[in-house]
Amino acid sequence: MESLACVLHSEKDLRIESVPVADMGDDQVLVRIGAGGICGSDLHYYLDGGFGVVRVKQPIVLGHEVAGTVEAVGAKVTKVKPGDRIALNPSRPCGHCKFCQAGEQQHCLDMWFYGSAMRIPHSQGAFRERIVAHEFQCEPVGDTVSLGEAACCEPLSVALHAVRQAGSLTGKRVLVTGSGPIGALVIAAARYAGALEVVATDLHDAALKKATAMGATRTVNVSQAPGLAAEEFTADKGYFDVAIECTGAGVVIKDVLPVLRPRGTLVQVGVTGEVPIPINALVGKEICFQGAFRFHTEYALAARLIKEGRIDVKPIITATVPFERAVEAFEMASDRKAHMKVQLTF
Amino acid sequence: MESLACVLHSEKDLRIESVPVADMGDDQVLVRIGAGGICGSDLHYYLDGGFGVVRVKQPIVLGHEVAGTVEAVGAKVTKVKPGDRIALNPSRPCGHCKFCQAGEQQHCLDMWFYGSAMRIPHSQGAFRERIVAHEFQCEPVGDTVSLGEAACCEPLSVALHAVRQAGSLTGKRVLVTGSGPIGALVIAAARYAGALEVVATDLHDAALKKATAMGATRTVNVSQAPGLAAEEFTADKGYFDVAIECTGAGVVIKDVLPVLRPRGTLVQVGVTGEVPIPINALVGKEICFQGAFRFHTEYALAARLIKEGRIDVKPIITATVPFERAVEAFEMASDRKAHMKVQLTF
Amino acid sequence: MESLACVLHSEKDLRIESVPVADMGDDQVLVRIGAGGICGSDLHYYLDGGFGVVRVKQPIVLGHEVAGTVEAVGAKVTKVKPGDRIALNPSRPCGHCKFCQAGEQQHCLDMWFYGSAMRIPHSQGAFRERIVAHEFQCEPVGDTVSLGEAACCEPLSVALHAVRQAGSLTGKRVLVTGSGPIGALVIAAARYAGALEVVATDLHDAALKKATAMGATRTVNVSQAPGLAAEEFTADKGYFDVAIECTGAGVVIKDVLPVLRPRGTLVQVGVTGEVPIPINALVGKEICFQGAFRFHTEYALAARLIKEGRIDVKPIITATVPFERAVEAFEMASDRKAHMKVQLTF
Amino acid sequence: MESLACVLHSEKDLRIESVPVADMGDDQVLVRIGAGGICGSDLHYYLDGGFGVVRVKQPIVLGHEVAGTVEAVGAKVTKVKPGDRIALNPSRPCGHCKFCQAGEQQHCLDMWFYGSAMRIPHSQGAFRERIVAHEFQCEPVGDTVSLGEAACCEPLSVALHAVRQAGSLTGKRVLVTGSGPIGALVIAAARYAGALEVVATDLHDAALKKATAMGATRTVNVSQAPGLAAEEFTADKGYFDVAIECTGAGVVIKDVLPVLRPRGTLVQVGVTGEVPIPINALVGKEICFQGAFRFHTEYALAARLIKEGRIDVKPIITATVPFERAVEAFEMASDRKAHMKVQLTF
Repeated sequence: MESLACVLHSEKDLRIESVPVADMGDDQVLVRIGAGGICGSDLHYYLDGGFGVVRVKQPIVLGHEVAGTVEAVGAKVTKVKPGDRIALNPSRPCGHCKFCQAGEQQHCLDMWFYGSAMRIPHSQGAFRERIVAHEFQCEPVGDTVSLGEAACCEPLSVALHAVRQAGSLTGKRVLVTGSGPIGALVIAAARYAGALEVVATDLHDAALKKATAMGATRTVNVSQAPGLAAEEFTADKGYFDVAIECTGAGVVIKDVLPVLRPRGTLVQVGVTGEVPIPINALVGKEICFQGAFRFHTEYALAARLIKEGRIDVKPIITATVPFERAVEAFEMASDRKAHMKVQLTF
Repeated sequence: MESLACVLHSEKDLRIESVPVADMGDDQVLVRIGAGGICGSDLHYYLDGGFGVVRVKQPIVLGHEVAGTVEAVGAKVTKVKPGDRIALNPSRPCGHCKFCQAGEQQHCLDMWFYGSAMRIPHSQGAFRERIVAHEFQCEPVGDTVSLGEAACCEPLSVALHAVRQAGSLTGKRVLVTGSGPIGALVIAAARYAGALEVVATDLHDAALKKATAMGATRTVNVSQAPGLAAEEFTADKGYFDVAIECTGAGVVIKDVLPVLRPRGTLVQVGVTGEVPIPINALVGKEICFQGAFRFHTEYALAARLIKEGRIDVKPIITATVPFERAVEAFEMASDRKAHMKVQLTF
Repeated sequence: MESLACVLHSEKDLRIESVPVADMGDDQVLVRIGAGGICGSDLHYYLDGGFGVVRVKQPIVLGHEVAGTVEAVGAKVTKVKPGDRIALNPSRPCGHCKFCQAGEQQHCLDMWFYGSAMRIPHSQGAFRERIVAHEFQCEPVGDTVSLGEAACCEPLSVALHAVRQAGSLTGKRVLVTGSGPIGALVIAAARYAGALEVVATDLHDAALKKATAMGATRTVNVSQAPGLAAEEFTADKGYFDVAIECTGAGVVIKDVLPVLRPRGTLVQVGVTGEVPIPINALVGKEICFQGAFRFHTEYALAARLIKEGRIDVKPIITATVPFERAVEAFEMASDRKAHMKVQLTF
Repeated sequence: MESLACVLHSEKDLRIESVPVADMGDDQVLVRIGAGGICGSDLHYYLDGGFGVVRVKQPIVLGHEVAGTVEAVGAKVTKVKPGDRIALNPSRPCGHCKFCQAGEQQHCLDMWFYGSAMRIPHSQGAFRERIVAHEFQCEPVGDTVSLGEAACCEPLSVALHAVRQAGSLTGKRVLVTGSGPIGALVIAAARYAGALEVVATDLHDAALKKATAMGATRTVNVSQAPGLAAEEFTADKGYFDVAIECTGAGVVIKDVLPVLRPRGTLVQVGVTGEVPIPINALVGKEICFQGAFRFHTEYALAARLIKEGRIDVKPIITATVPFERAVEAFEMASDRKAHMKVQLTF
């Protein structure tokens, strides 16, 4: 079988092409993809041909935030049946390495992750009409949410995993820096986890409106003074118990330290290269500066929360474009002031 | 009463002068100081007149690593009696602020710490013949260890507190970067806590010999290739479960990240200003970069471990000088290749 | 000044009497009590003259679940002002003992707790028209909730503290056994903390209706087979990540073990005497059987959650009676099938 | 190939018989067993034909505490080579179930454990001259310890796992109840983990001597008053931070609660049926009563600690008997006053 797909050949060279659909094994599922969200890493591949040392060296089907409908299932499959609407977990840890056997699958030594150029040959992605996936990748989302909402399971998993790195948030004061798509979902995840206050920051009021829609209890436009330098945030060595940093901007990371209380936790979600960190502040306040990477068990939780309407992801979806116009969609997604999450339909 | 003391008037202007001894209250103790170790912060005051924004603005008695003998006790004192040999805890948290009431006394909003210029008037220190202290500051050390060893309680407390920030070390592979006095005590504390391997680094073989004497299971001279870049340390995403960074050197902190396993912990003890940190490594490996500052309950533990000979601190004491020759002692201590810990006697 | 109060002289001998109102100190507050909830321990004093070894040996003003309005404040008080509506924290830890200094105030060695016969002289309670309290005991509740709701801060604190003993509940499957007033508030607290499923049990459908109103995602009437023995709960070594046991009934505790997953946590809130526990089940599944006692920081959180309407406690208040008819109210409260929480007004 | 083995046919019917040796696969190893320790469960099978609902229903080779020498290795084996002396991990979790994938292998849904009658057909044990095992079960022990010491890896793993359930023991006061073979190893493991004090109890002075040899800092013969009821242990709500209960005797468990400090942890290792637990004490002191079952990662650690001489297990080995006289050895082991650990040689 063949399927149409969004194939990136090199920087800015994205084509709609036919690619083969693998034969379905006994524990596999044939999925008709219905919606797919464009993520920051997809954009980096499209705009820059990669990021850091990860470069597109072969044609690669992009896309890892997808949902669809089961069309057929292998003989041993019991979790889903044809007609089921599912979110499709893009990560396939090996299950055998020391990290998988320790419950730390996100650090698998042999991870396959849809639409990633980290390994050669590249892991092909899921912006395609049909795909054969493993049963364990499928998470039912029921019939009441759109496939576009279901396709938000992946970024919501990232947000839930990030929130979990801070330990229990119940009753805590939480700062979320950056109200883009991940920041917005982190806000929702932090509220779900019982955060008492969720203060969201951004440079743009439009993003802060979305932050409020996602559950922020207060917003701070840090392009305007005093921003986080307000006395209420810095008094008594710092206001927040936890900060979740979603911008990856060095200046933001530094601004967070003075408003975190001693023994507070700074969860870093946004990725960047080297950033100057004031070690004396980290030491003097015994800050825990904790990285957060991908997700594992959180995917099933995300599917359930979206399915049951406990977290409403609709505010972050700002455009939906047929996949045949993928280039247009990627250009739209590049305008981060205008768009939070651009999705393709298949 | 008056007492002779080591008073710093300004950079390099250290004098032996008479200072008043306070009247002893009911819950206080008069201590005849016997030994005092020169710490890095004492040296900074002496050599540079302070560090960062903390500057010596008034005459200040230096010293916070001290031990002595009880000469008299107030009416309500029960913990010690005249003649008892004690280590003297230099930190006096207020007991009332929100941090004290949360068991986080090292972050007390109104901390008094011997020989610190952080507040005005400065907290006067303990390089003096006699001092009146609170009963709760006194930790008995018995009769079998020297007062010089007892004076190592303070830096050992710092080491025990740092080790504790990494959670249980039992059965873990631990890297200790920097084998100066704090690094050496961290090595001993990590071994005491059940670390399976303690690999110590330094630029100098002399320090690494001390590291071995303190319990390192292996040493690496990082001035010689490959240092930590050895394949055995970087394979499978990193060898060490925990690193405890005692140098405060930016280049060392960066070298640690590739040898820490995913979800490993980097405890930062060494203090410095801004250091460029590769955020992508912190995020991708979900490193916990945790500051460690001072100590609280660890002081009594340190006293007990030294008293009972469970941790032998003697290898770090490299010179003992009568306090009348304090200037000479401070100059000796400035030569960090020649000396680990220079102590004064009183 | 004098105030009318509900004074228990001995078993079943509850009188409305005048008691003195203490002089107000600089850091104290005069409160006009508006509402007070009858708790299980109040009932035990009334019905049985005590519980276990704790016996009423002197006249004691009962009551510790109260809220009111500030009438006057001492010179140093800044947290509240006359006219403020507040919930009144009934616990006054000493602040000085080793438990207070470790942030474990609920285990204070010198605790005063309103309306408790644990110490002699008894700690007098707050079922009275006017009381002088410490500033730190007052938590503002705003103007939009009733004082009856505000008086639920104390049992909600107990529930929040219990929930916290299980670690993060985010995404977890939680069982709450017993849907009385504490169980009902535990359900709400578990939902607030992000529990994915909260299955509530009781012997009576009326209580289960309240459980649903408080946020239970499912209810099980354990008076009917199969109850918790249903295959879905026992398969694969147990369904629930966490159980919070609110009945104190031995048979219930035993029924919980088979439905808890290995390494699951059983938080015990309900109090009773000796209960036979199957040690082989506790060991073989590595269950954490964790006691939960009172609260500390949770009181301020409870006040905030009630004030902001994040947790709605109204469903548990089943009757409100003027305090002059306290005997009648206590008799009503004794009928646990008919009533969840009976409150007095003052 | 055939091998002689200790086969239990039913209660008290233990025979030396020839059993088949499986063919060796590519990732397997042929081991010549050298020593095997008789464990409490072996004894239960021999004396009572089982314990609880677990009954011997088929002939079963007993034994799971074994060590030996590699005789041959499969084509893919790299961890060991012929001639290597190893301890043989008796547990083979499936690697695939939800517990294995969560790093909780001791709760594997499809566990094979040497010499266990829990499943039908029974898991055959390792009291036999030769056995084919998986590479991953082999832990090298070097050439300086005896195979008898190496055979203590299994019970030491149990002890290390139990100790780990209490969190970090560094600087803690630990009570170990019962100084039999597991208690003795728990003492050593607690000292290795940095316990400040390890107080061991037993009914017999001979066992307490062994406890001291294994590292107990103090011993209490609880057959003599006051035992644990001494005022120093009960003052201020309890002396010990952690208790590790190794007897499985109900009366002992109850005696522990009054000497555990509030928020202390009671790790239960000893197995028994129902024991009356005072719930009011568990609740009022917020005790964490934590089960500990078997081990997983601790086996490799145990092998390393024995190999490197960091924990000396020799004091617990009280007799060594050729396996042909296994019946005699089991009878010796039944006399728990006379023997701690009886081992067979092959």
